[in-house]
Amino acid sequence: MIKPEEALKIILDEVRLQPVEKVNLMDSLGYVLAEDVVSDMNIPPFDNSAMDGFAIIASDTVGASKESPCKLKVLGDLKAGDVSDFQVTSGSALKIMTGAPVPQGADSVVKKEDTSLNNEEVLIYCEAKKGDNVRLTGEDVTEGEKVFPCGLDIRPQEIGLLASLGKSELKIFKPPTIAIISTGDELVEINEPLAPGKIRNSNTYSLTAQVISCGAKPVPLEVARDNMDATRKLIEKGLNISDILLTTGGVSMGDYDVVKDVLTGLGAELKFWKVAQKPGMPLAFWRLGDKLIFGLPGNPVSTVVCFEEYVRPAILKMMGKNHIFRPEVDAIFEHDLKKKPGRAFFVRVNVRRKNGEFYVSLTGPQGSGILKSMSLANGIAVIPAETTLVKTGDKVKVHLINLPEDH
Amino acid sequence: MIKPEEALKIILDEVRLQPVEKVNLMDSLGYVLAEDVVSDMNIPPFDNSAMDGFAIIASDTVGASKESPCKLKVLGDLKAGDVSDFQVTSGSALKIMTGAPVPQGADSVVKKEDTSLNNEEVLIYCEAKKGDNVRLTGEDVTEGEKVFPCGLDIRPQEIGLLASLGKSELKIFKPPTIAIISTGDELVEINEPLAPGKIRNSNTYSLTAQVISCGAKPVPLEVARDNMDATRKLIEKGLNISDILLTTGGVSMGDYDVVKDVLTGLGAELKFWKVAQKPGMPLAFWRLGDKLIFGLPGNPVSTVVCFEEYVRPAILKMMGKNHIFRPEVDAIFEHDLKKKPGRAFFVRVNVRRKNGEFYVSLTGPQGSGILKSMSLANGIAVIPAETTLVKTGDKVKVHLINLPEDH
Repeated sequence: MIKPEEALKIILDEVRLQPVEKVNLMDSLGYVLAEDVVSDMNIPPFDNSAMDGFAIIASDTVGASKESPCKLKVLGDLKAGDVSDFQVTSGSALKIMTGAPVPQGADSVVKKEDTSLNNEEVLIYCEAKKGDNVRLTGEDVTEGEKVFPCGLDIRPQEIGLLASLGKSELKIFKPPTIAIISTGDELVEINEPLAPGKIRNSNTYSLTAQVISCGAKPVPLEVARDNMDATRKLIEKGLNISDILLTTGGVSMGDYDVVKDVLTGLGAELKFWKVAQKPGMPLAFWRLGDKLIFGLPGNPVSTVVCFEEYVRPAILKMMGKNHIFRPEVDAIFEHDLKKKPGRAFFVRVNVRRKNGEFYVSLTGPQGSGILKSMSLANGIAVIPAETTLVKTGDKVKVHLINLPEDH
Repeated sequence: MIKPEEALKIILDEVRLQPVEKVNLMDSLGYVLAEDVVSDMNIPPFDNSAMDGFAIIASDTVGASKESPCKLKVLGDLKAGDVSDFQVTSGSALKIMTGAPVPQGADSVVKKEDTSLNNEEVLIYCEAKKGDNVRLTGEDVTEGEKVFPCGLDIRPQEIGLLASLGKSELKIFKPPTIAIISTGDELVEINEPLAPGKIRNSNTYSLTAQVISCGAKPVPLEVARDNMDATRKLIEKGLNISDILLTTGGVSMGDYDVVKDVLTGLGAELKFWKVAQKPGMPLAFWRLGDKLIFGLPGNPVSTVVCFEEYVRPAILKMMGKNHIFRPEVDAIFEHDLKKKPGRAFFVRVNVRRKNGEFYVSLTGPQGSGILKSMSLANGIAVIPAETTLVKTGDKVKVHLINLPEDH
């Protein structure tokens, strides 16, 4: 048995960055930029008005006030999207809409609310300063600037700026495909009646949902029955179509745990089997060519927790994400918890935040089959292997699955 | 001009919960449960083995040890998915695989590692306690139990438990459809060349991405040109297909800002126009029948920020989410910032966490057109209207867009 941190290191050392893929801008949301984005233009591309009002020469308005407005001749009218040949000279103004190019000669814009228009003359009720309400060429982005580096997470606000730059297509690290095979003669599909001795196949569903939540592409396959032939066929199919293969069950000590034998037969290199942890002790991990294979234990909670702690970081690293781990916080434990030494405990907890401190309470019984306490959890507390007692008030490390809401 | 908190209250008071929709289990991920889920079964449905080993009667093993094992007759072999007629009596054992039903008579399971099998006899090397390694009927969920209440967020771990319960279909609050119309003669599509006076339409893209990030369904429409007819046609189209219509631009003081006039002509009820905030002062909000309409200002940052602060909570409330706001934290400001009184400032910031405290720094120039400082931001600091000076070390409220990673 190896330690959880050793298992994680072995896994992450095996992970290779995904190949680069060119996608449409909108399809890049949530993925990682696989190129430096250098602007071939200024944003804004021209000096333009930040307001609806009048483009003027600021020095014309010295001393202007509500009582003693300055009067300027209006040369015309310019809306956004149009260009003009107007030349603003001392004593004149051009009516201008937000976003329209500032005309030649003008150095500032007075907003409509500070003016009144009478036929072809405008009264200006305040002093303008040079540059007032003018958005300068390149004030957001300058031509030649590296706007975004390779490796950046693409969020909605990045999408907006990439659109401004005209990046209708861009390169991302291709989201990996994850094949999912649950194993076991006891499994029936979720819409089938339960015969005696049978349970429903829930792991394929929770894993598919976890893969989706990572931004990767799940391919849930059929259930592999507990015989070598059926299991080998499905595993070969899964390996053919995926970057990572996940199996659940069949990696324990049982006579019908055939996953290990099948993978050995296929020539997969076992990187580790068994991790000193609870739940999820029988976790196994192989490489076969450029494919990674996780043998997840079949208990529903072991599956979910091992995905969280081992598979998710691997997938995010493949996708080029900078932050591949859940945020870890120190939290105050609100129970007494005894355990045997030797294995780390991943404990399902509810995390709250109060006065800047995090507090955690158990969400219920912690058996590997008890998914309800996983459903109630927004965090996983990590109790080290050597610890035998955690007391109320002790600090523990917690991996936050969701951000605690009540603070 | 109304205050931001008044604007938000008006919006949220107008929001109605979405209708209920029945979907396949996997399509419910990320949405909100619109029914109570009551279990019609026990989970597990039968007492079963948590280990590969031997089902026995615990009292048979009193005094057993490595040196002095207890010897039991093996009745047979039971794998997961099968049922048996075996009756375990004193002196006998049944070989059993993880997940297989515990046979009649047995009250515990000894794991394989603590035994050795010799033909038809097994040696047991430890004392078993009644209930050891047995997962009891209903220990996760009992028949008739309300497992999940209406209103619950459906995450991967909920998907797993719902699958175990056989909920192949379930009711969610239907994700709303959000139509998006950018307005302005100055806009060209992102893959078109830029003529003089033109800029690219970025708002449709950032808004589409923001809608996707909320879990709602975006319908980006064409750009509305600055005339009543074209704008009216597009707005009517948008209203026909959506629950919420978002427009950007055309709500300011300009002569060509036709969105307000079109909506008035269509009979929409203006709930407010202009909010005492920067960016996003010209924000407008209407109701027309059961549709809500947001007139977002056209500046790229105003659009993103107004979506974050007003549209996102409205969409999440429609979807039945319990937590509709970004987490708000008190953070230490790392600059001096002067402002005029009268308008609240939404300031784009980078939030870090260090020793349990949050710190924020500006991400750059804060002009409404400067999307780059939005791209660099993981939070929005809210500086109240009456504040005129924030000093280094002062605490400010921050809405966290992303969880800060470096703590």
